[in-house]
Amino acid sequence: MKDDVRHMAHALRLGRRGMGNCWPNPAVGCVLVKDGRIVGRGWTQPGGRPHAEVVALADAGAQARGATAYVTLEPCAHTGKTPPCATALIQAGVARVVAPIADSDPRVAGQGFEMLRRAGIEVTTGPCAEEAMQDHAGFLMKTEEGRPRVTLKLASSFDGRIATATGESKWITGPEARRAVHGLRACHDAVMVGAGTARADDPELTVRGRGHVHQPVRVIASRLIDVPLMSRLASTAREVPVWIVHGSDAATATRRAWQSCGATLIQSRVTAGRLDPGALLAALGSQGLTRVFCEGGGQLAASLLAADLVDELVGFTAGLALGAEGRPGVGAMGVDTLTEAPRFRLVETRTLGNDVMHRWLR
Amino acid sequence: MKDDVRHMAHALRLGRRGMGNCWPNPAVGCVLVKDGRIVGRGWTQPGGRPHAEVVALADAGAQARGATAYVTLEPCAHTGKTPPCATALIQAGVARVVAPIADSDPRVAGQGFEMLRRAGIEVTTGPCAEEAMQDHAGFLMKTEEGRPRVTLKLASSFDGRIATATGESKWITGPEARRAVHGLRACHDAVMVGAGTARADDPELTVRGRGHVHQPVRVIASRLIDVPLMSRLASTAREVPVWIVHGSDAATATRRAWQSCGATLIQSRVTAGRLDPGALLAALGSQGLTRVFCEGGGQLAASLLAADLVDELVGFTAGLALGAEGRPGVGAMGVDTLTEAPRFRLVETRTLGNDVMHRWLR
Repeated sequence: MKDDVRHMAHALRLGRRGMGNCWPNPAVGCVLVKDGRIVGRGWTQPGGRPHAEVVALADAGAQARGATAYVTLEPCAHTGKTPPCATALIQAGVARVVAPIADSDPRVAGQGFEMLRRAGIEVTTGPCAEEAMQDHAGFLMKTEEGRPRVTLKLASSFDGRIATATGESKWITGPEARRAVHGLRACHDAVMVGAGTARADDPELTVRGRGHVHQPVRVIASRLIDVPLMSRLASTAREVPVWIVHGSDAATATRRAWQSCGATLIQSRVTAGRLDPGALLAALGSQGLTRVFCEGGGQLAASLLAADLVDELVGFTAGLALGAEGRPGVGAMGVDTLTEAPRFRLVETRTLGNDVMHRWLR
Repeated sequence: MKDDVRHMAHALRLGRRGMGNCWPNPAVGCVLVKDGRIVGRGWTQPGGRPHAEVVALADAGAQARGATAYVTLEPCAHTGKTPPCATALIQAGVARVVAPIADSDPRVAGQGFEMLRRAGIEVTTGPCAEEAMQDHAGFLMKTEEGRPRVTLKLASSFDGRIATATGESKWITGPEARRAVHGLRACHDAVMVGAGTARADDPELTVRGRGHVHQPVRVIASRLIDVPLMSRLASTAREVPVWIVHGSDAATATRRAWQSCGATLIQSRVTAGRLDPGALLAALGSQGLTRVFCEGGGQLAASLLAADLVDELVGFTAGLALGAEGRPGVGAMGVDTLTEAPRFRLVETRTLGNDVMHRWLR
């Protein structure tokens, strides 16, 4: 049991290597252990294939026979573009499979375990279930609720401001915090901003300073697509994907112009004059995204928070005060009483250079 | 040298027991050590007398002869209400005095050390100088700049709000953070709020849940004294001091009413329609305060921050979002560019229950 936890923790660490890089598939890790020795390791590869189990089995070769496979999610049971992993494990002669949780994809949901058991393989579930739930939260949410998991970043002054009244925002937080933001971008499938932030900051929203990494999709949420075509996002849309979620009233000429830049346009529902946050996320989920990192601005953050669609908050608080004229990190939410306000549970507090990093879960 | 640091750290810990409780005098600690054994301990007593050295000498009795005295600030050299401590140390036959820093009070400033040396006592300065400067920062600031040291508290939502649009503020932070606030009150000479907070929250501003402690002075900064006479501050002004700093245009009837409640009225300068923050603090300094804990509201916080008069910031960040309609923790500051914004250095980050505590120095 203690060994099960240790090997599963190892498999979870491997699985995280694929985070942000293998959607629409889950970022799974797999370790094959035989006589107490690790004989194979694998994790879901870029684009989602091959799956972790297949990579680990290839790594182990003949040594897989009689081994225990530690897999961070129930092995798949359905034939997609590749044969099911459960079949691969059976054919390799694995003696035992340990997985923390079942897959919630209806095409798998217990059937992977069932296939293995029927083939005479011992199946153990449970070890590190909580960590696995957390790691696969985006994939499970997409499968169960049809939307990606949302992490909201708020990098603000001590008094919750993300820019001065004149719009100056570079830099409120220091280099260590900004580096951490690039790390967060890298482990999400997509980075999302509202049109206001895209206009004000002209951001690239790419992962920089982290070596060669997969770039997340860049999503702009803008009902009328009021982002200049001279922006960095437009000029780099052929290199790193740009998706624009817009309303039905976005001008046809604007849509065409962005399409000709290489952007993907996704029409979504408008409610009370704004993109409906639930419909927006559902649209991203149906495109396969499992983890979205929202970097503001205030209006988009407020709309997601008010609709209770933020699963994780990551705050970076800098040691300066900008005063009430500064731009608020969270826009108007229509909250009158404290009981209405969405509450989060603190999970981490850290000093990053001269800034405070704090992480919260819904 | 290593022993000097160890004993001085002990003396500093003792000295902190008097913090908030011995103004206008500094909160000094003293340890007497003879042949490696501690023979006497003392700290400045409530109200500022007796001084730490006198308490420690009384504790040691005849054992003081030939001992080393570790004092956290230069012993006083002037005769005030009691004879100077330097004389007391000489008369007790102390062989050596170790003190981290000189006193900046012009009546002492090196003369205490001089008196001791002339009496043949070995004087060592330096050990734990940085900690001592920090501990005595309020006293040194009052002596050198004529104003108390200011700690500003900001207990806000994730997005920097201290109340909903309707004014609800109980409770944004949790019991652990609120308990920490009572601890901070207890180690300051005074707690200060603006009239807006006094009206909105009707606070008592006393130290509660910490056993029997000295209560800090309660200061209300209000140009026109627009705080109701039905408030808790008014009704308890005879039990715990209430000082009101007001402008020359406060109505005479209002002043008299507060005086008859037991409050002390202090008139101060008004600049651009508001109490001048520098004059306000100078007035408090001339009353003897060395450490002031400001608990808001937004306008007073902004006025102190904009005038660069905040020495320490203590933030409590709660895991909820209130949105841009919520009341800002820091009011309008007139900051247009990031270089104009007052910046602080992060010195501590801590998890307190479900809130983040962060401490910053100017």
